[in-house]
Amino acid sequence: MTLAPQDKAEILVEALPYIRRFWGARVVVKYGGNAMTDPDLAARFAEDVVLMRSVGMRPVVVHGGGPQIGELLGRLGKTTEFRDGLRVTDAETLEVVRMVLVGKIRSAIVSAINVHGSLAVGVSGDDARLIMATQRDPELGFVGDVIGVNPSILERLLAEELIPVVSTIGSDPAGQAYNINADTAAGAIAAALDAEKLVYLTNVEGLLADLDDPTSLVRTTTATELEHLLASGRLSEGMVPKVASCIHALRNGVRQAHLLDGRIPHVLLLEIFTREGIGTMVTP
Amino acid sequence: MTLAPQDKAEILVEALPYIRRFWGARVVVKYGGNAMTDPDLAARFAEDVVLMRSVGMRPVVVHGGGPQIGELLGRLGKTTEFRDGLRVTDAETLEVVRMVLVGKIRSAIVSAINVHGSLAVGVSGDDARLIMATQRDPELGFVGDVIGVNPSILERLLAEELIPVVSTIGSDPAGQAYNINADTAAGAIAAALDAEKLVYLTNVEGLLADLDDPTSLVRTTTATELEHLLASGRLSEGMVPKVASCIHALRNGVRQAHLLDGRIPHVLLLEIFTREGIGTMVTP
Amino acid sequence: MTLAPQDKAEILVEALPYIRRFWGARVVVKYGGNAMTDPDLAARFAEDVVLMRSVGMRPVVVHGGGPQIGELLGRLGKTTEFRDGLRVTDAETLEVVRMVLVGKIRSAIVSAINVHGSLAVGVSGDDARLIMATQRDPELGFVGDVIGVNPSILERLLAEELIPVVSTIGSDPAGQAYNINADTAAGAIAAALDAEKLVYLTNVEGLLADLDDPTSLVRTTTATELEHLLASGRLSEGMVPKVASCIHALRNGVRQAHLLDGRIPHVLLLEIFTREGIGTMVTP
Amino acid sequence: MTLAPQDKAEILVEALPYIRRFWGARVVVKYGGNAMTDPDLAARFAEDVVLMRSVGMRPVVVHGGGPQIGELLGRLGKTTEFRDGLRVTDAETLEVVRMVLVGKIRSAIVSAINVHGSLAVGVSGDDARLIMATQRDPELGFVGDVIGVNPSILERLLAEELIPVVSTIGSDPAGQAYNINADTAAGAIAAALDAEKLVYLTNVEGLLADLDDPTSLVRTTTATELEHLLASGRLSEGMVPKVASCIHALRNGVRQAHLLDGRIPHVLLLEIFTREGIGTMVTP
Amino acid sequence: MTLAPQDKAEILVEALPYIRRFWGARVVVKYGGNAMTDPDLAARFAEDVVLMRSVGMRPVVVHGGGPQIGELLGRLGKTTEFRDGLRVTDAETLEVVRMVLVGKIRSAIVSAINVHGSLAVGVSGDDARLIMATQRDPELGFVGDVIGVNPSILERLLAEELIPVVSTIGSDPAGQAYNINADTAAGAIAAALDAEKLVYLTNVEGLLADLDDPTSLVRTTTATELEHLLASGRLSEGMVPKVASCIHALRNGVRQAHLLDGRIPHVLLLEIFTREGIGTMVTP
Amino acid sequence: MTLAPQDKAEILVEALPYIRRFWGARVVVKYGGNAMTDPDLAARFAEDVVLMRSVGMRPVVVHGGGPQIGELLGRLGKTTEFRDGLRVTDAETLEVVRMVLVGKIRSAIVSAINVHGSLAVGVSGDDARLIMATQRDPELGFVGDVIGVNPSILERLLAEELIPVVSTIGSDPAGQAYNINADTAAGAIAAALDAEKLVYLTNVEGLLADLDDPTSLVRTTTATELEHLLASGRLSEGMVPKVASCIHALRNGVRQAHLLDGRIPHVLLLEIFTREGIGTMVTP
Repeated sequence: MTLAPQDKAEILVEALPYIRRFWGARVVVKYGGNAMTDPDLAARFAEDVVLMRSVGMRPVVVHGGGPQIGELLGRLGKTTEFRDGLRVTDAETLEVVRMVLVGKIRSAIVSAINVHGSLAVGVSGDDARLIMATQRDPELGFVGDVIGVNPSILERLLAEELIPVVSTIGSDPAGQAYNINADTAAGAIAAALDAEKLVYLTNVEGLLADLDDPTSLVRTTTATELEHLLASGRLSEGMVPKVASCIHALRNGVRQAHLLDGRIPHVLLLEIFTREGIGTMVTP
Repeated sequence: MTLAPQDKAEILVEALPYIRRFWGARVVVKYGGNAMTDPDLAARFAEDVVLMRSVGMRPVVVHGGGPQIGELLGRLGKTTEFRDGLRVTDAETLEVVRMVLVGKIRSAIVSAINVHGSLAVGVSGDDARLIMATQRDPELGFVGDVIGVNPSILERLLAEELIPVVSTIGSDPAGQAYNINADTAAGAIAAALDAEKLVYLTNVEGLLADLDDPTSLVRTTTATELEHLLASGRLSEGMVPKVASCIHALRNGVRQAHLLDGRIPHVLLLEIFTREGIGTMVTP
Repeated sequence: MTLAPQDKAEILVEALPYIRRFWGARVVVKYGGNAMTDPDLAARFAEDVVLMRSVGMRPVVVHGGGPQIGELLGRLGKTTEFRDGLRVTDAETLEVVRMVLVGKIRSAIVSAINVHGSLAVGVSGDDARLIMATQRDPELGFVGDVIGVNPSILERLLAEELIPVVSTIGSDPAGQAYNINADTAAGAIAAALDAEKLVYLTNVEGLLADLDDPTSLVRTTTATELEHLLASGRLSEGMVPKVASCIHALRNGVRQAHLLDGRIPHVLLLEIFTREGIGTMVTP
Repeated sequence: MTLAPQDKAEILVEALPYIRRFWGARVVVKYGGNAMTDPDLAARFAEDVVLMRSVGMRPVVVHGGGPQIGELLGRLGKTTEFRDGLRVTDAETLEVVRMVLVGKIRSAIVSAINVHGSLAVGVSGDDARLIMATQRDPELGFVGDVIGVNPSILERLLAEELIPVVSTIGSDPAGQAYNINADTAAGAIAAALDAEKLVYLTNVEGLLADLDDPTSLVRTTTATELEHLLASGRLSEGMVPKVASCIHALRNGVRQAHLLDGRIPHVLLLEIFTREGIGTMVTP
Repeated sequence: MTLAPQDKAEILVEALPYIRRFWGARVVVKYGGNAMTDPDLAARFAEDVVLMRSVGMRPVVVHGGGPQIGELLGRLGKTTEFRDGLRVTDAETLEVVRMVLVGKIRSAIVSAINVHGSLAVGVSGDDARLIMATQRDPELGFVGDVIGVNPSILERLLAEELIPVVSTIGSDPAGQAYNINADTAAGAIAAALDAEKLVYLTNVEGLLADLDDPTSLVRTTTATELEHLLASGRLSEGMVPKVASCIHALRNGVRQAHLLDGRIPHVLLLEIFTREGIGTMVTP
Repeated sequence: MTLAPQDKAEILVEALPYIRRFWGARVVVKYGGNAMTDPDLAARFAEDVVLMRSVGMRPVVVHGGGPQIGELLGRLGKTTEFRDGLRVTDAETLEVVRMVLVGKIRSAIVSAINVHGSLAVGVSGDDARLIMATQRDPELGFVGDVIGVNPSILERLLAEELIPVVSTIGSDPAGQAYNINADTAAGAIAAALDAEKLVYLTNVEGLLADLDDPTSLVRTTTATELEHLLASGRLSEGMVPKVASCIHALRNGVRQAHLLDGRIPHVLLLEIFTREGIGTMVTP
């Protein structure tokens, strides 16, 4: 890099008010898409999360893993049916879901962060009744809806300045586990933690006013406007649960939600520590 | 049950000195075999671990999972070679090892314990440099030997009165993970924690003086006698790493080691809280 | 004992839910009668109290000592008058009351418990305004009624995991001491401590529906039923203050009261840690 | 009082350096003689102890009670034999000793102090192995010699800013109690607590150079000089255990010992908070 | 001094109830006049403040310094205008105010106290928004009125048992500093700290019923009576802000205010620790 | 600024290892010269110090003020003599020194930092015996040499995450204050605090190999080389105490010393948080 020293100093000083403002603030990051599967982006993501914590923030990572689950099921020769876009989940499928989420994806995230020290700890949504779920529809098997979040285990980890990495498996009072949509879980967790920010890393630039026009990026919007957009039916399929979850979080105390392009290296840093921000920001 | 009240009282009172003696004591339990695969025994095991903690002990569970790993590899059509009884472990195999240990077996143990409250927390041996390993032999791929244990993460969990459940994956300073023998890891962890007891749950009654004579159970022995036995070559193949690990632990501060029959329901309770004990007890 | 190992294990496991349920719970035990004067039963009682504490409960022992006071007065050649069953208590008698309660009975209880470690601490009801009293009737001299309890000294001892042993002497704001009925004091202390249980050790099996029929033991009853019973006048003289005190405690937050047969060794353990319980249990 | 305001101010200021110097200092006071039996002096003593604590000192009161024990034995018609000035103590006598020391004298001291708040707590030397004793001579029965002091219970009370009042009963490892000389116990406790001062309240002005000459008061002396005096045999019988105990304490870390005239009201205050001091001061 | 020992003891005992009563109590002392400029009285004042703290009180010293400021301005040849008795304060004058208050007077007070240990810490009213001020009148320049007090920095120092010494400079939200009347600031600080006492050291005996009659000292009065007096216009010019500030403090939770003659050595001690008190006491 | 987002991100990430490395590290900064007198540079300096603290470092600011002292003495018409470059300091001069250092310069530094929150606290070297001094030469009056540092007051402030700002006035055991060279004091304080870094802000680029050649800047050197340089006599007069103090600090545990050009805005940030560093770095 050939930046002048004064440029460097100005950037550090530019970060100062954000460091001070977000000291101790909880930020829930839904991690997925390219940012998760591209090894280089994954390392950048881990650096960002560690930097957030180093300057006093309290990040919480929430992850899913649909494509990777599909892949292992495929290798095992297990065919699964889809209804309304949801995978019918029998007991054997649920076991595969857990092996992939907990044993593969989460382990990889925790490892990438812990290259920088013993900072991250894996948590499953069915530990300590973290994600309370109920069966959505008997025909879908063990697919669950979030009906509540008990954040006490996260509180305890945050109090020790650790970074929780949450696999989105839910459970009901009888201890039965369910596969849970990770986008929805992230919003519910942000609300339960009274988070300052909820951030989605996606494979698009942010929210587009016109799905077909990549230059129509919405820089800032509000929960109310998102409600209209959601009702309009003009959102892409993948964006629906994210937008619904943002609305839920903002209506329940979260101060800001963000839809960021996870393909940009260090997009988390840029959003948090620079004056211009990046992607789409949603306020209540 | 038709026990007289006084019998009940006497049994509770019989447990009292052990409760007092072992208050705060760390007990490392290597969990495996039938006790792990029989759902009823698994539930009994979880009850025992919870009772130990309820009366002030500090149990740590260490588990392996060779058979279950073999099974998933089989279902994936992945053939693995064995050399000297050790599975040659390539990167893809290691991923399967982790998915099974962390995503399936450990999740099941944690769930069984947490039926009784938020008590257990899963830990991988490559978290926080817990199990420090080195490659055994390049021809074996990612098979590691334990060269040290950094118990700080366990200390932290125990300080919060949680029950750590450890998957025996090790790592080297570069962060490379290795498959580790769980029997060996249990002994090294017991030594590093300065544990009061190291307990192996096996599929046999205990240590047999004569392999072919099930009535030749050794009730008590010493580390020195075990060394002779190990040198004699008369131990069964499965018993060798357990016995070697007991010796290591007892030579490094652990007060007692036990080889118990995991097929007996509540065998942990009987060993710890009754006057006669059960299985084979080894002292330094 | 020739119990089978599985019987032992089942009894320990049977105790587990009670250990978990009563962890941290306060149990006030009014200690008296045979359980106090028979050295063997006294040692059993001490074991029970220590076991309760070992598994995390917070026992408080309250004792009286009418017969022993009478005996020393007799030896000193001091005759005392009784009015309505109450000893007229002059200053000299009060000094004897204190010497016997504090210097003899309480010392013996504390010693019996402390055989198992430094666990028990003696407290007088006139320490730290614990038992606030007022004179019942000038003609009775220094006989007091409980008008309030200030549990702060007990809270402090319990916070240090000590076992308070309380002698039932009360005091008024001017510092004048009074002889107090120990049954009444026990109930008032249980209420002030927001105790889980209040337990009376008596010389009878429990509450009898028919005073003359030892087989008419009432296993469970309620505060309301006790009020009717008290009003009916069919209670034995010794049972009246116990029953009145149970009602008071249950009406003020105590969850359960028990009337147990102190002649049964380890009756406290049997009541608390077994499924069937024993004696008479009263709920609000 | 008709003192000028400036006199009052000067006396308070005169006390300032002692308040600062003795902040946190432990002072063991052996309480006995007239100061204990004259109600007015007893109230003055309690005020002094409370004032010491109010300005940050940590007083510990140690008491005996020979005359009061003799009196109750007399009333009970119990004759006891003396050998070499020591009372032959059988089990019944020991029970009386305890009733008088714990149930009467200590209760009175605790009450007198607690008029000023919940400050004092009674402790017996056989609680928590405080005074470790061994039998002096089988012919004397339960008369013990101090062989060690375990101050942990006192440390705990002092840490809570309470004032321990110690009855000098000792115990051996088997739990057998013994009657102990209170003068000796006070010195051993002062040494074990690393006290700043050990103070004896007596019925004489202090140490007299010439037993028959009340004007021969020794104002300051040293442990070495006391050893010579002890060897000379010129000490009064009552002074011998006090002087021996002072020497022991000063040889084991106590900074100053004092022999004061307990018949002077507030003699403790005058010794501690005024420039001239009073009575006899002994330094190592 | 030739006081009898018993007189000394009685004075110490006389102080005991005040020591107990004022343990932990906050006392705000406005320090000024002769007590500040006479080196001997200044040393006496420091002793009094230290003694107050030694016995558990929490003194806070507030000081001004008008005459000393005037003197330095004179030496610098800087003439300042007065309007309605207030010094017109330009930026250069404010710099002189700060140098004198912080660099000279406060340093001297802190040093005098710290002769007795590291007890005092200097604080400026514009540290941590302690004294929130607003400009009184543009024509007066940087002369401010107190509009609020943020006592958090004082709370923190008191929690560490330190003695804050406050220079009365205020600041507005923009960070602009103002010269503040010290009498007014003292009352506002006492109210904000919920002080037990507010004490003014003056150059007169106290409040006089008749300004011209030094024997007309008012010993006790009330806030209501002071309000009448203030309205009557019969107060001396220097007494007006003190009396107004006393009323404000007493109307806002302070229990007692005192106007004392700072020319009497140890006047603080005499007021606080003796039965008769001294000067004028005002209650709500 | 027109930096690309990725440049910003890289600079923040570049800072990450330094943030992690210096978390909790103590850095003593000697502040003086242009950086102190140019209002804009002073504001930049305050920002840097606050940023250091925001990311977990523990900065300590040490300041002098020779020119400003000279200026006030001049305005007061006070002429002072110099001997060997040192100002002869009489009592009146010392009062001026204190007013300027404490009342003017330190107040200004504290205010500039506290614009960002209640972070800085002023400390004088004669508070709590922080800078222990002795008179250098009676002919110089109150000019002192540092003979020791008692860092306990700084430790206490750092433990509360405050930023101490130290005026370099020393004192001897009798409480006499002395004027102290600030460069020397900074090194002694760094050594006493076991600081990670000692930083001097000067009016030159750093250490020049050739005084006359501004391009001869030494980027890195060692304590040993500095000793040779000091002995060679080729250092500028102002550099001598800084270099001597660096050697002292590095010989007593400080890990790095830096001589930076205080005229560069944010020079502290650039030194600490960028890969290239800036100015001259000295290692042991």
